[in-house]
Amino acid sequence: MEIEIATIGGYEEVGRQMTAVRAGDDVVVFDMGLNLSKVLIHDNLRVEGMHSLDLIDMGAIPDDRVMSELDGTVKAIVPTHGHLDHIGAISKLAHRYDAPIVATPFTLALVEEEIDDENKFHVQNDLVEMEAGETMSIGERCELEFVNVTHSIIDAINPVLHTPEGAVVYGLDKRMDHTPVIGDPIDMKRFREIGREGEGVLCYIEDCTNANRKGRTPSEAVAREQLHDVMRSLEDYDGGIVATTFSSHIARVSSLVEFADEIGREPVLLGRSMEQYSGTADRIGAVDLPDDLGMYGHRKSVDRAFERIMSEGKENFLPVVTGHQGEPRAMLTRMGRGETTYELDEGDKVVFSAGVIPEPTNEGQRYQSETLLRMQGARIYDDVHVSGHLRQEGHYEMLDALQPQHVIPAHQDMKGFSGYVDLASSQGYELGRDLHVTQNGNTIQIV
Amino acid sequence: MEIEIATIGGYEEVGRQMTAVRAGDDVVVFDMGLNLSKVLIHDNLRVEGMHSLDLIDMGAIPDDRVMSELDGTVKAIVPTHGHLDHIGAISKLAHRYDAPIVATPFTLALVEEEIDDENKFHVQNDLVEMEAGETMSIGERCELEFVNVTHSIIDAINPVLHTPEGAVVYGLDKRMDHTPVIGDPIDMKRFREIGREGEGVLCYIEDCTNANRKGRTPSEAVAREQLHDVMRSLEDYDGGIVATTFSSHIARVSSLVEFADEIGREPVLLGRSMEQYSGTADRIGAVDLPDDLGMYGHRKSVDRAFERIMSEGKENFLPVVTGHQGEPRAMLTRMGRGETTYELDEGDKVVFSAGVIPEPTNEGQRYQSETLLRMQGARIYDDVHVSGHLRQEGHYEMLDALQPQHVIPAHQDMKGFSGYVDLASSQGYELGRDLHVTQNGNTIQIV
Amino acid sequence: MEIEIATIGGYEEVGRQMTAVRAGDDVVVFDMGLNLSKVLIHDNLRVEGMHSLDLIDMGAIPDDRVMSELDGTVKAIVPTHGHLDHIGAISKLAHRYDAPIVATPFTLALVEEEIDDENKFHVQNDLVEMEAGETMSIGERCELEFVNVTHSIIDAINPVLHTPEGAVVYGLDKRMDHTPVIGDPIDMKRFREIGREGEGVLCYIEDCTNANRKGRTPSEAVAREQLHDVMRSLEDYDGGIVATTFSSHIARVSSLVEFADEIGREPVLLGRSMEQYSGTADRIGAVDLPDDLGMYGHRKSVDRAFERIMSEGKENFLPVVTGHQGEPRAMLTRMGRGETTYELDEGDKVVFSAGVIPEPTNEGQRYQSETLLRMQGARIYDDVHVSGHLRQEGHYEMLDALQPQHVIPAHQDMKGFSGYVDLASSQGYELGRDLHVTQNGNTIQIV
Amino acid sequence: MEIEIATIGGYEEVGRQMTAVRAGDDVVVFDMGLNLSKVLIHDNLRVEGMHSLDLIDMGAIPDDRVMSELDGTVKAIVPTHGHLDHIGAISKLAHRYDAPIVATPFTLALVEEEIDDENKFHVQNDLVEMEAGETMSIGERCELEFVNVTHSIIDAINPVLHTPEGAVVYGLDKRMDHTPVIGDPIDMKRFREIGREGEGVLCYIEDCTNANRKGRTPSEAVAREQLHDVMRSLEDYDGGIVATTFSSHIARVSSLVEFADEIGREPVLLGRSMEQYSGTADRIGAVDLPDDLGMYGHRKSVDRAFERIMSEGKENFLPVVTGHQGEPRAMLTRMGRGETTYELDEGDKVVFSAGVIPEPTNEGQRYQSETLLRMQGARIYDDVHVSGHLRQEGHYEMLDALQPQHVIPAHQDMKGFSGYVDLASSQGYELGRDLHVTQNGNTIQIV
Repeated sequence: MEIEIATIGGYEEVGRQMTAVRAGDDVVVFDMGLNLSKVLIHDNLRVEGMHSLDLIDMGAIPDDRVMSELDGTVKAIVPTHGHLDHIGAISKLAHRYDAPIVATPFTLALVEEEIDDENKFHVQNDLVEMEAGETMSIGERCELEFVNVTHSIIDAINPVLHTPEGAVVYGLDKRMDHTPVIGDPIDMKRFREIGREGEGVLCYIEDCTNANRKGRTPSEAVAREQLHDVMRSLEDYDGGIVATTFSSHIARVSSLVEFADEIGREPVLLGRSMEQYSGTADRIGAVDLPDDLGMYGHRKSVDRAFERIMSEGKENFLPVVTGHQGEPRAMLTRMGRGETTYELDEGDKVVFSAGVIPEPTNEGQRYQSETLLRMQGARIYDDVHVSGHLRQEGHYEMLDALQPQHVIPAHQDMKGFSGYVDLASSQGYELGRDLHVTQNGNTIQIV
Repeated sequence: MEIEIATIGGYEEVGRQMTAVRAGDDVVVFDMGLNLSKVLIHDNLRVEGMHSLDLIDMGAIPDDRVMSELDGTVKAIVPTHGHLDHIGAISKLAHRYDAPIVATPFTLALVEEEIDDENKFHVQNDLVEMEAGETMSIGERCELEFVNVTHSIIDAINPVLHTPEGAVVYGLDKRMDHTPVIGDPIDMKRFREIGREGEGVLCYIEDCTNANRKGRTPSEAVAREQLHDVMRSLEDYDGGIVATTFSSHIARVSSLVEFADEIGREPVLLGRSMEQYSGTADRIGAVDLPDDLGMYGHRKSVDRAFERIMSEGKENFLPVVTGHQGEPRAMLTRMGRGETTYELDEGDKVVFSAGVIPEPTNEGQRYQSETLLRMQGARIYDDVHVSGHLRQEGHYEMLDALQPQHVIPAHQDMKGFSGYVDLASSQGYELGRDLHVTQNGNTIQIV
Repeated sequence: MEIEIATIGGYEEVGRQMTAVRAGDDVVVFDMGLNLSKVLIHDNLRVEGMHSLDLIDMGAIPDDRVMSELDGTVKAIVPTHGHLDHIGAISKLAHRYDAPIVATPFTLALVEEEIDDENKFHVQNDLVEMEAGETMSIGERCELEFVNVTHSIIDAINPVLHTPEGAVVYGLDKRMDHTPVIGDPIDMKRFREIGREGEGVLCYIEDCTNANRKGRTPSEAVAREQLHDVMRSLEDYDGGIVATTFSSHIARVSSLVEFADEIGREPVLLGRSMEQYSGTADRIGAVDLPDDLGMYGHRKSVDRAFERIMSEGKENFLPVVTGHQGEPRAMLTRMGRGETTYELDEGDKVVFSAGVIPEPTNEGQRYQSETLLRMQGARIYDDVHVSGHLRQEGHYEMLDALQPQHVIPAHQDMKGFSGYVDLASSQGYELGRDLHVTQNGNTIQIV
Repeated sequence: MEIEIATIGGYEEVGRQMTAVRAGDDVVVFDMGLNLSKVLIHDNLRVEGMHSLDLIDMGAIPDDRVMSELDGTVKAIVPTHGHLDHIGAISKLAHRYDAPIVATPFTLALVEEEIDDENKFHVQNDLVEMEAGETMSIGERCELEFVNVTHSIIDAINPVLHTPEGAVVYGLDKRMDHTPVIGDPIDMKRFREIGREGEGVLCYIEDCTNANRKGRTPSEAVAREQLHDVMRSLEDYDGGIVATTFSSHIARVSSLVEFADEIGREPVLLGRSMEQYSGTADRIGAVDLPDDLGMYGHRKSVDRAFERIMSEGKENFLPVVTGHQGEPRAMLTRMGRGETTYELDEGDKVVFSAGVIPEPTNEGQRYQSETLLRMQGARIYDDVHVSGHLRQEGHYEMLDALQPQHVIPAHQDMKGFSGYVDLASSQGYELGRDLHVTQNGNTIQIV
């Protein structure tokens, strides 16, 4: 059976991930993501109303025209988790394919919301829920399996397409977490089995985000302990404390909610995406948040929440807000500009439970946000965080577990791939033979 | 009563700390440290046999000749903890003063060993043990108190000299740790009392090592969780694992010993200083290490230990060795050079539970050590560590607790002071009025 | 005679420079500058219409209320050169003092334009022209002298106040340039004389911008050779070439004009400040630009110029435009956004004859500008530039020439001062004795 | 005709360059270099006496065993210039091939010296001189041409193998210099012709050393102006001045000699390699150094030279010495350690006309050397230098001139290649199709 892999998007950047695997006549698509920075560099564009061709030209969504070169039928569209760089183009591209969208419950719920928000296209593909550990048939001879992995969002999986020639493992995005705070540990046992059963692993496509970093990405348990340490140290502070983190990072939000309670403060989630992700996770039962937890996304309800906080005394609350990267319109930036009714006083604490995404525009915005906060007297606790992506020793362990015949680095540009190529080379892989450094829009014939 | 402070050493560098406080006719000396890098830049010098004047000329030990300008009598020499940059010059300078050396048990035991190793001078000062929380009289009107603090070595204290004009708090070295793994949390309650009782705090001398870093230094509990995470991830590895850390970091060594056991390996401490610090801590009961824990410092016993490890199977052991900075003669560097009988195989793990001290010579040596280890196939886990020194938010909290009339930044050069000066200025202190940026060899008349 | 120095602004930042020297009853004010970044962090503020007290509160202009502590009469306001951080607050503050503004011709012309643009205050102080090498009396016993220096703007001087107690040399801003392209070399001979004649130098106030950088700041001749090399390499290119640099950097603009001609292109200066500075320099005869050189600042005339360039063929022109830091509203940024009629094609060249000012907001904007230009196919030549500020060896030479009794580092924050303090200490100065690290709003009694 | 390229060494590192091109039955080998750092990491190895297999195992010289896979006869070994990473393995490997070594005069003279110094092997290949612009036949249907390029050593060329299928251009190492101080400018006219004549360029192998750096590498004329500026600024200094640079950088050494004279000092070249390279260049007439220029390499003659300098007054001399990277045994490092009779005084100047090679071991050594020099009072002028390797805009121009069908990045590891891959991709090349990212030991069939 011919096995061919089309590396459609996310092989020259982080963002707009899309990969298709053809096994004989059957094709499975992994991820359809959005590169938001390509939209934001232009002033005043609203993605919801834009046409896919314009977004392709801007480099914002995958250029899926290469799909016509694949001689097969799409049988499933499989987003691996709910981050925008993996699901954000579904509403623009999925309707072109007569295939269901198959994902874990939380991911699927987020996909559904994306589709609802879309103005231009009308995506009507079937939405099929599949949990980690479950499988479904693809055509007559292949099988799709979800292996549980751990990432900075819950319900992440690595899909595996079992073919007669061996397994194709799509390894985006994960860290190797044995104590992930919410959800199960990464299922290394299953990866090791897949590496050894049947024909073994034919091909492994890997997330290289942190492939240039030494060592091991710490567990969420480490970030939690770091956050616990910060919150504990603020226990006696009797003024305002504000926290911010990735809205989609349910485990972190959950830790914040828990530690707020521990130090005698009422947590309140504020900001549109904060309400969206936590609300969705709570609604589908993926996380067990307190029943009375306030989550407010709409401008007016946020305003009312801030007014309540100020009138009841801000020393009794922990607002958990959007704006961890200093995004100009996010809640924390607006607080820095004095555009909300929350008043910061000298000595008030702002906890960034997030790293700074290393891109100059972003670093500039984050710096400006911190500067505005400091001008009002705020004290900054930054980088209370660990990444959701494997570093070199995680990659080493994955290669050891899967022993793939072929590897394809992904989710980076060439500079990002370099650390992975060095690692794979040291393990006996050879560029051009079984180590495939590629770009957007290519197809690789593996069998 | 006149209060005068002599900033003798460690005000232009990290290393060779020494400060004297005169209260009326009585003088207390805090720390007498060694700047080892000033010795190592010359080839083949052995400190033990060198004269103090030569070491002063080299910038290796404090130039205590400024003591003659202080019109008073030394009543106590008070090393705050057992690191060499705080006790390493005692064997060269203490005999000049007719005063006891007063320290906590572990610090005192290390001072004693320093004195024993010295060849040139014969220090015979009384050695007086004093625990955190205890006090002693200094002259007729002053009192010396030890406040418990947390640092990267156990039994660290901040000495406080209570004078009729207020307290002089000598704040070197600490982080604000509420969960320190070994020993008690930092005694913030006592600091807050001292800030409010009697005349309050007249002067605070502060450790600026990390004063240019934002946020809060994490607790040792965070480093422990990080280390736990790494060790847990290696549980199934059936080859060699080697760890290295600061020999004097008893809490970290203790965590390594504990986690070794947890993953089914026998810990063995190897290297001269590894044996010295842990042996001493164990002997005086400062730490509760397993009775059968092997510690080997002498060349021959180390060799025998390595032979046993290789013959019984290195998969059963966790050697904890010296060499975390790539020091040319340390154990790990020798392992990298193939100079020991321990054989590294492809895939074996080396865990650096230490940061890299940011100085180019050091970075070069560490890099070379890692390169040698990698050439033998080792996989590196680096920076499994948190610092022992306060960052900006710790400094902010200390100022808030003590509310000192005067502050003196220490334990850095001017660049290192700059973050502290910015912080203190933002809290209302003014350079030249109550914020004293100074250099080695100065005296400051506070009252 | 009492000599007192008030360090009013620019001692905790780069920007809003202001220093006053009192010699007996007479006071001379050096510089009254603006810190523009403190304005820009707020949205939509226009400095021209703002009150000085608001600008002081924002940290944008010097807080000159400390002047009331100086027991003397202001006899002269002396801006040292035409950069905004040295003259930008004159229109907000000078009217409070009954004293002439004394400056070199180009500086004075720029001051006049600032005063004309001001909407809120009406500055009517006399404007007195004085050239480098000239002197004027200050009161009965002092004399003000202008010593020629070299900087990134023409007509820069270091003012020297000769008092009976020795000279006070105000050393902002300069590099040591013996081949400055336009104007005379720095007058080191005069500095050396001042260091040795009469009472010598009582006090030296120094520009520490680059005090943490090793070596020597290269001459403008080096930047010119670098620029020449780039332009020469583009001689055969038959598409668009665009250059950008500091509008006020007349020597650099002049080199660009000259090299444009050399490679057969017509230079055109575009953008408001580009027209202003070059127009002013040309008008007063400070530079000899070609008679037919086009300079356009107003939107419509710029539009017409671009239209002419596009219709006559952009291969025949070298537009020299504003926007070297990626300022959002500058000409080059607008070109990147496609908001002008100049069309960039694949392969067109953009030459940044400027460094990136190292501040995250700025770095973000510059990155965004480059990204937009690249998206249109532009090739970037960056950092064709040398700084206008002394590095360490320049500082060393100045101390050697002047041999001042007292030194005061300026034009930086504490971190920036640190390199200078290290240098001065190594030359025998002592903090608190004759080396005065100070902050905004202090006064220092020298005699 | 089949065209095949073997990428033997220098495709995973800088160092041990070696590439073979097979055109039909004929093979040409470009470069046989040494990676010295792989030797130096081991203690006390002397390359001259080592066997090639040991050196191959250490990664110090190219593993030429892949040559057996090439079905053809080696007709020429062509070192492109005299740097060790291009010629340093000739004495270990060339004797295995029955082919002449063809090179420019200076390169050939250096190769000859390498062969003479070798103890283990006896290389007897013919040495054939060929100048830039000349050609020789390779077999019946191919021709080898040398195109003049500019680099940090004189007499560098890019060899071009003209085949019936088009030209293979071996593009290591160069910058694009139109004003190179010594020798002719880079022959871009010829490159443009080669790109357009006959079948055009089949394949281009490119030096990616600086491919991640923006802009254009400045000309040697810029480095010369920079150096001139430094030396001019030291004209009045009446103490010791010492300079160091790459011994093989004849143009730089020549500028130093010239400027020494200009400021009234006698230049003296000191150190083994300093004598070797300049002596050789002078002997073959490649540079016109003053007849009475002293060059001393042997320990005793160096000692005598230093004694003469000290007795006649060091203010009359400019020693130009080895040790620009802080190499432990080089002359400048020994001067820093006080191991020569040259005495540094407070204020003496040391000019590093060299950058720091960015590798931690090296940075550590250089730092240590500077520290030792500073401890004796020396003032440091560092980085008076420009690189000899193309940056991105040079690469852009080369692609534009040659318009090759295939490109192969070389002279770096994957991280270094990344900037080049990005550039080539933006110009329409595709990984795996006509853009070949490869590793040591591969062969690429182009036709």
